[in-house]
Amino acid sequence: MRSEFDFINYIKDRHELKVIGDDCAVLPKDTQSDQLFTVDLLIENIDFRLDWTTPALLGHKALAVSLSDIAAMGGTPKYALLTLGIPQGLWKTSFLDEFYEGWHKLAKEFDVELIGGDISRSPNDLIIDSFVVGEVPHQKAILRSGAKPGDLTFVTGELGGAALGLLLLENGERLTNEGEDPLQRGLLRQLKPHPQVIIGNTLMQKGLATAAIDLSDGLSSDLAHICEASGVGAMIGSSKIPLTRGATFEMALNGGEDFELLFTIPEERRSEALELGAIEIGRIVTASSGIKLIDEKGQHDLDPKGFDHFAAR
Amino acid sequence: MRSEFDFINYIKDRHELKVIGDDCAVLPKDTQSDQLFTVDLLIENIDFRLDWTTPALLGHKALAVSLSDIAAMGGTPKYALLTLGIPQGLWKTSFLDEFYEGWHKLAKEFDVELIGGDISRSPNDLIIDSFVVGEVPHQKAILRSGAKPGDLTFVTGELGGAALGLLLLENGERLTNEGEDPLQRGLLRQLKPHPQVIIGNTLMQKGLATAAIDLSDGLSSDLAHICEASGVGAMIGSSKIPLTRGATFEMALNGGEDFELLFTIPEERRSEALELGAIEIGRIVTASSGIKLIDEKGQHDLDPKGFDHFAAR
Repeated sequence: MRSEFDFINYIKDRHELKVIGDDCAVLPKDTQSDQLFTVDLLIENIDFRLDWTTPALLGHKALAVSLSDIAAMGGTPKYALLTLGIPQGLWKTSFLDEFYEGWHKLAKEFDVELIGGDISRSPNDLIIDSFVVGEVPHQKAILRSGAKPGDLTFVTGELGGAALGLLLLENGERLTNEGEDPLQRGLLRQLKPHPQVIIGNTLMQKGLATAAIDLSDGLSSDLAHICEASGVGAMIGSSKIPLTRGATFEMALNGGEDFELLFTIPEERRSEALELGAIEIGRIVTASSGIKLIDEKGQHDLDPKGFDHFAAR
Repeated sequence: MRSEFDFINYIKDRHELKVIGDDCAVLPKDTQSDQLFTVDLLIENIDFRLDWTTPALLGHKALAVSLSDIAAMGGTPKYALLTLGIPQGLWKTSFLDEFYEGWHKLAKEFDVELIGGDISRSPNDLIIDSFVVGEVPHQKAILRSGAKPGDLTFVTGELGGAALGLLLLENGERLTNEGEDPLQRGLLRQLKPHPQVIIGNTLMQKGLATAAIDLSDGLSSDLAHICEASGVGAMIGSSKIPLTRGATFEMALNGGEDFELLFTIPEERRSEALELGAIEIGRIVTASSGIKLIDEKGQHDLDPKGFDHFAAR
C-alpha cells in the first residue's frame, strides 16, 4: 500500500500544500505574535471506524490531532473551525451531541474557542475536518529545521501504544473503561490521544528545543522529517525507546499516531529536558552519517516506515 | 427534503457553529485589522457531480464560494488551506493537476496564498474543504445586522442563473464553451461563480453598506437572514429583480448559488450604489411589516425557500 503514501506525498510536493514544511503554517500576526494554522481531515473507514470508538472519543481525537500540530511548534491553540459531512444514518441519533461533547471537553481544557464551521450531508462516509489557529511569540515557533549535530533527541512519552491499540481493535478488542490495564491503555492511546500542548509551550518559552515534530506518522518517519528539514543525521538507541506496555519495537518505530513530541536540544541543556519528564533516545549527527538505530548487534539504517496506519485501515 | 435543512440548522444552532451569525467569523488581528475566517465543505454528489463539471471548474468553485463569504463582509482574502479526500479512481488521472490549475488561477486573480492543507484517500466520494482567511480594517467588517428601516436594498448582478444551470445539467446539457449563448451562460453561472470581492471591498471602504450577505442560499432566504439579524422587514419589487436570461422568477428568488451580494444602504447614498453597477430591488421596513414581495397583483409574503439546491442534487 506504499503507493498511497507516495501518491499523497507527490500531491503535497507538486502543489506545495505544505509550503512551510512544518506541522503548521506560520504567518506574522502583529509585531509581537505569529499565527499558526493547521488542518486535519479524518474520514470514516480511513482514519477511524465508528464501531471501534465512541462519538465522544471521536470528537476528542478530531481536535487532539490538530492541537498536537500546534504543540509541536510550541504554540498556544486559540480558535477552531470544525467541518462535518454527516451521513443520513447519524442524523436522528445522539451521535452529534456526544461528538460535540467530547470535542468541547478537550477544547475547554486548552481554552480553544469554536468560531465557525460548515455542515453538509454526506452520501456515504462521516467526514471530519478540523482547522485550528494558534499563536506563538514572533519568530519563536519551533521548526523542524533547527536540529544541529551534537544535539540530543528526546520524546515526551511512551511509543507504540496507538499501533497496539489499532491491532487490538482489529482483533475485536473494545474500550470498556478508561482504566490502567494494558489492553485498555493501548486502546486509549489509539482512541484518545493527549496533545502535548503544555510541554510544547514550555519548550518554546524556555527556548529549549532546536527542532520539534509531533509523532503522527511514526518515530522512523518523523525523525526523518526533522533530519531532512535540518540537513542532519541521527542515531537512536534501541534500548532507550520507551515502549507502551504490550507494544512491540516495530509499533514504536513505525506505528504512528502516538502524538507525543519528538524534539532536539543542545547537549548542555539535557537536565532541563529531563526535568520536563522527557526521555532521551539518541543524538543528532551529521547528514553523511545517515539515520541509524543502535542495538546490541550494532548499527542499522533506520528507514522511514511510518504512516502504515494509513494503509492498515 | 426540508428536513435536511432543518437538521443542519438545528445542529448549527445547537452547537453554535456560526457564533457570529455572519458569512465569516470576525476576530481582532491587531490594532488596525480584523481577521475573517470562513470554511466551505463540498462533497461529491451532494454539492457537485464530476460528470457535470471539469476538474478546473471545480477547483475554481471550491475557492470561489469561500471568497464570496469574505466579499460579503467587505474583506480582502489573504490565505487559504485546502483539504481533499480523494477516491482511488482519481489518483492516476490528471484530475488533481487540473483541479489545482483552476484553483490557483482564481487564487492568483485575488492574490490568495495557499499556506497549507491536508490530503487523505476517501473510500467513496471526493471531498473538498476550503478554508480562507481574510482581512478587513478594525471594526469595518460589513455585518448582516446593520440594516435599518428606510435603507435601500441592492444586488450586485443577475439572479437565477445558477439554478437555471443546475436544471440544464440535470436535463443533460453540458458546458462546451464559455460563450455568451443563454444555455452556456446558465451553466457557467452554476459551474463558475464569480466572487464579488471587489465590489464588497468597495462597499466597505466607502462605508456604504449597512448590511450585506452573499446570495448562496437564495434571495428569499438570504434576505430573511439580513432581516432576522437586523431586526427589520423588507419589501422587494418583483419587477426589479434582475433575471439571468432563461431563468424563472422562482429560480431567482429561491435558487441560490448565484454568489452575487445582497446589501443595504442609506437612501441618501443611492447614487453611489448605482455607480457601482448594483441594481436596486427594494427597501428595508420595520420588522412588524414582515418580508413582502410586491408585484402587479399586490403584496405577498416572501417566505424563505432557498437552499433547495441542497435537496436538488
